[in-house]
Amino acid sequence: MTKKVVSIDIGGTSVKLAIIDDYRNIIEKWQIPTNIVNNGINIISDTINTIKEHLVLYSKEEIVGIGIGIPGPISVDGSRVIKAVNLGWNDVPLKSIFEDKFDVPVNLLNDANSAALGEMWAGAGQGINNLMFVTLGTGVGAGIIIDGKIINGAHSSGGEIGHIPVISNEHRVCGCGNLNCLESFASANGMVKTMKRILTEANVNRGHFTTIDIFRWMSDGDKYARQAVEETTNYLGFAFAGILNTLDLEKIVIGGGLSGAGDALLNPLIKSVDSHVFSQIRSNYVISLSQLGNNAGIFGDAAFFFNEKV
Amino acid sequence: MTKKVVSIDIGGTSVKLAIIDDYRNIIEKWQIPTNIVNNGINIISDTINTIKEHLVLYSKEEIVGIGIGIPGPISVDGSRVIKAVNLGWNDVPLKSIFEDKFDVPVNLLNDANSAALGEMWAGAGQGINNLMFVTLGTGVGAGIIIDGKIINGAHSSGGEIGHIPVISNEHRVCGCGNLNCLESFASANGMVKTMKRILTEANVNRGHFTTIDIFRWMSDGDKYARQAVEETTNYLGFAFAGILNTLDLEKIVIGGGLSGAGDALLNPLIKSVDSHVFSQIRSNYVISLSQLGNNAGIFGDAAFFFNEKV
Repeated sequence: MTKKVVSIDIGGTSVKLAIIDDYRNIIEKWQIPTNIVNNGINIISDTINTIKEHLVLYSKEEIVGIGIGIPGPISVDGSRVIKAVNLGWNDVPLKSIFEDKFDVPVNLLNDANSAALGEMWAGAGQGINNLMFVTLGTGVGAGIIIDGKIINGAHSSGGEIGHIPVISNEHRVCGCGNLNCLESFASANGMVKTMKRILTEANVNRGHFTTIDIFRWMSDGDKYARQAVEETTNYLGFAFAGILNTLDLEKIVIGGGLSGAGDALLNPLIKSVDSHVFSQIRSNYVISLSQLGNNAGIFGDAAFFFNEKV
Repeated sequence: MTKKVVSIDIGGTSVKLAIIDDYRNIIEKWQIPTNIVNNGINIISDTINTIKEHLVLYSKEEIVGIGIGIPGPISVDGSRVIKAVNLGWNDVPLKSIFEDKFDVPVNLLNDANSAALGEMWAGAGQGINNLMFVTLGTGVGAGIIIDGKIINGAHSSGGEIGHIPVISNEHRVCGCGNLNCLESFASANGMVKTMKRILTEANVNRGHFTTIDIFRWMSDGDKYARQAVEETTNYLGFAFAGILNTLDLEKIVIGGGLSGAGDALLNPLIKSVDSHVFSQIRSNYVISLSQLGNNAGIFGDAAFFFNEKV
């Protein structure tokens, strides 16, 4: 009988659940919609109920823990969700709620940290103890692992690389209130904004478009799209070089929507990092794409219980 | 009888030595000149001899270790000095050399890392486990401590924040070969360079000057000096905000020659960090001056043996 963990990835539209064993197998996987009415008060009971239904198939001894990934910061002591804007949550003592219901150890993780652990345990970071997982989507976030351990930070703000300040002549106000955060330039929205600026400067109108269009145009030889991708990856490359120079990591794993562009994103990004990173590090780091995609989080929730280094 | 460590801080002009006990007392302290002829081949025997002379005053049981700080990177396994340009050293197995001679545990540390541990154990970082020590002098370097442990990095380049790339219209080639590293702007030399540019733009000639002159001029109300200090601290503030957003540290301790300017440096620096750092971190970090000054390194060499967290 293998040991198993209940992995829960709570997102703004769905709660993904899985039973994962210590051989990195997903035994089963399902999801329920996230009910965000009334400040998300039903999310917890909905999740508890669906777990109870599924756990009838398993013996009590098999289940060694419950790992929960949250789109928001976790308190330094690991007991509470400080805030999860997308869920409507404020200061929720989630660990004790689940421990009381299931009488097994419960671990809470910020979702980017969870994805980082997942890639380390079962994905692009296997065998590596010093890495950063970066999600490039509507925002830019990261989970940083040093010596196998997540950097949650002194105030639960470790890995907030989307808010690294960027020097620019533009004036982009970030959702956090600051000016010219990395996220304002290197997220999907930031990249679209850059492309719009380039097109406006060139007096070209292409109507509505997404980052998928930009990468498609670039592969068709469009110079404006190429410029937009280069500006975006250059800002990212500056930030990554700074992080590598500070932490000397072995690997950066890229996930999130923009990672779907593959080499069209990676190649200019690596070129930018190479030209800015410290010479001793230049040939000694790797940037690669996520291997687990949307499953990174549920693997990470389980990794906490199964990976000795964590 | 208190436990004692032999602390050695090997620098380009002198080797500082001390006997430090586990109550943070310097029992004695002395130094010898650094003999850099013949690729520094005599430094090791000179240091061994002076220690032997001093150790006749102590019993073998008192001395629990020898801690050595080096101006260069230490191999990931802690056994070798990879390189120390100022000493002429290349790949020196220093740990085993000292262990063979003295038959006690020996620990090697990069000097910035050693200063960071020293401030944590006996200086401005007491009681804090997540901090960065930054030396602002002819160069810019750092020692970063997370959960009480030094980040030496996957390739011994952790804390190389002087080489974080900076976006600028200027074209300053760094000693490392890269363009516009933080060190090119935020070191003492970088600040003088900035002041010279400002004076040239204003058609003002002030001959030779140092950063001490710049801070003196600023306190006398000179607008050019104020601009030079603000540009310097703004580059530093950008970098520090990025690092805080990435690692969410509790404290940054500033040492090195520029720290002698005190509040004239700290106040504009904190203002710059505040305007760029993530809002959750803004009121939750501290920047302060080194308390140990030139003694930070020898305290750090001892801290390795006496601080349980390290």
